[in-house]
Amino acid sequence: MTRWVDGLASAGVAAGIKPSGDLDLGLLVAARPVAWAGTFTRNAAAAACVHWNRAALGRRARTLVVNSGNANACTGGAGRNTVEATAAAAAKLIGCGTDDVLVCSTGPIGIPLDARLIESALPAAARSLSSKVDDFSRSLLTTDTIPKVSTSSPAGASVVGVAKGAAMIAPNMATMLAFLGTDADVPADVLQNALEWAVDRSFNRLCLDGCESTNDSVLVLATGNGPKLDQQQLREGLLEVCSDLALKIARDAEGATKLVRVRVEGARSETHAVEHGRAVARSDLWRAAIHGGDPNWGRVLAAMGAVDRDLDVETTSVAIGGELLFGKGEPCGDLAAAAEAMSEDEFTVSVALDQGDSVAEVLTSDLSEEYVTLNAEVTT
Amino acid sequence: MTRWVDGLASAGVAAGIKPSGDLDLGLLVAARPVAWAGTFTRNAAAAACVHWNRAALGRRARTLVVNSGNANACTGGAGRNTVEATAAAAAKLIGCGTDDVLVCSTGPIGIPLDARLIESALPAAARSLSSKVDDFSRSLLTTDTIPKVSTSSPAGASVVGVAKGAAMIAPNMATMLAFLGTDADVPADVLQNALEWAVDRSFNRLCLDGCESTNDSVLVLATGNGPKLDQQQLREGLLEVCSDLALKIARDAEGATKLVRVRVEGARSETHAVEHGRAVARSDLWRAAIHGGDPNWGRVLAAMGAVDRDLDVETTSVAIGGELLFGKGEPCGDLAAAAEAMSEDEFTVSVALDQGDSVAEVLTSDLSEEYVTLNAEVTT
Repeated sequence: MTRWVDGLASAGVAAGIKPSGDLDLGLLVAARPVAWAGTFTRNAAAAACVHWNRAALGRRARTLVVNSGNANACTGGAGRNTVEATAAAAAKLIGCGTDDVLVCSTGPIGIPLDARLIESALPAAARSLSSKVDDFSRSLLTTDTIPKVSTSSPAGASVVGVAKGAAMIAPNMATMLAFLGTDADVPADVLQNALEWAVDRSFNRLCLDGCESTNDSVLVLATGNGPKLDQQQLREGLLEVCSDLALKIARDAEGATKLVRVRVEGARSETHAVEHGRAVARSDLWRAAIHGGDPNWGRVLAAMGAVDRDLDVETTSVAIGGELLFGKGEPCGDLAAAAEAMSEDEFTVSVALDQGDSVAEVLTSDLSEEYVTLNAEVTT
Repeated sequence: MTRWVDGLASAGVAAGIKPSGDLDLGLLVAARPVAWAGTFTRNAAAAACVHWNRAALGRRARTLVVNSGNANACTGGAGRNTVEATAAAAAKLIGCGTDDVLVCSTGPIGIPLDARLIESALPAAARSLSSKVDDFSRSLLTTDTIPKVSTSSPAGASVVGVAKGAAMIAPNMATMLAFLGTDADVPADVLQNALEWAVDRSFNRLCLDGCESTNDSVLVLATGNGPKLDQQQLREGLLEVCSDLALKIARDAEGATKLVRVRVEGARSETHAVEHGRAVARSDLWRAAIHGGDPNWGRVLAAMGAVDRDLDVETTSVAIGGELLFGKGEPCGDLAAAAEAMSEDEFTVSVALDQGDSVAEVLTSDLSEEYVTLNAEVTT
């Protein structure tokens, strides 16, 4: 059983937002106002709560309220009122300013979220606050099949994180949320810098269906009760947790049966490597081939050629599960060996460019009939 | 029954490239060398035949050889040799220069294509040349369920076109080919300009699975036996045929059950409108919602917000089948009415921005379980 760092407590309750009656409201409270940092979706149709939290950057935070079962995105003035009402109710209950409350949501887009459900359930959540992450981590989930928790211990400090995955019940975007706590004693600007660095190298290298959410948010609260960390120690500590959570999200992706690492070497820059990795990771055709266990390296090359017009196929190679299938401009290798590697739960497709020394890895999963079935369900 | 314009003849035969024994080799011959124009995939992993045809731009053409069942893409030196051997065999048979022969292929990527199959079948094709388009149009098909033929009559001239669709048997990219013939008397540079203009407004506004092919090609041959056309007459004549063929491709997309028009209004430019239309057209989540008949307008808005960071949702509206579901920053309208419209074989999703006067329409289809099943088949 995982516990938060000293100075943080959480709870998870059922507020009736999910028709199933499952846990759907999480509360995370710091013993006093603390430094925090956040990274958010860049989607122009971002949810009201994303705007609320962005406006709070630079202030201290005391309380975080998160609901699953409704994204409260594209819900207009009523949606904004719900965020404000949620913050006001939590502030009153915890004894802090409304401005000290962060709010997150995940679920279907465009459906009104009744603030009264949250207001009614918050007192029970406050009464059950404890250092355990368990109920909180479960209250975030939608079609995730398991809670996602991870920890690291950089230079004597602790980092604890929880996430919900890119899995979704019928009508929602792949809303991805992660919340981290650390006892590291660091200023907010260092925390923000380190979080952006870590998220860029972990969650931002996860590409499942290529659909960017209106609600994606990663937040970290730093209590300052622990040791001082320098920038690099903090970065590494956050990265360890973020990477592990990203891996857990990919493994539990909606309808997925495989975890696939797309490794790109020899790129001009890390950005260039990630661009190629994402192109391969989001190809519907390659992801369908993964599902069928078909070592269809041509789809990998075609996905790269579509995003990089200067790609030279003569100096580009593609290997699946370590078996080189295309190199020096020619097909080669043993397709049966590659198919064998693809039959495992996890495998790597490696692409080598001959343009530089940069390397990056992007995670993806297969595209299955189940993904289509789940997302074709009528629920609006 | 459709016939080519005067001066063009075609045939389609079975060369044994497709294991099914179906027609898989097409031959199109002009009575003398004629002006031609072509637009090609921009994929950096373009097939050997695409490079061959690009190099021939600016010369006259006499003969076109096209095979289905194998894309001859990413096949290295052997693939280049096959293109050359194909051109040489056709040149000898028809009595023209090797440089006067255009070559196109469609099918799985990365599989060697034996030139001898083509060389052996070409004589029979030459013997069965006729003015009918029928066998030629059928020889291009892969998982297309019907041949695609279209005609127009701009200012007393004729345009005839055939296409194969973005449908595919298991292991290939969405290779799209279209071949047009016209009797218009126009110079090659005018023809090239008009073709690019027409393709940009037709085939380039078709977005099914978002996967760009290594072999996409649209070619037009102009015999000059008919009237002289000015630039605009030619453009409109080609556009009429290209748009109709694009529509036929969308209707016959792999696994598709619906044709969907994504109409974007109020954009800053036509390019901007197309960018939004393509973003909506390639969203896996929205395409799964189409399949399920779910009027999930939030996915439409989220897809747009992911490609246009400056999108203002407060001044953006979304309507499905004429029913306004989001406007002035608020959800609105009758979801049941939108769902009713989505139950038809064809419907329009309309997006209105408030940024300018430009309009564009992009065609797409639904994402079905069948698409995944077909593309998960192991065939490499």
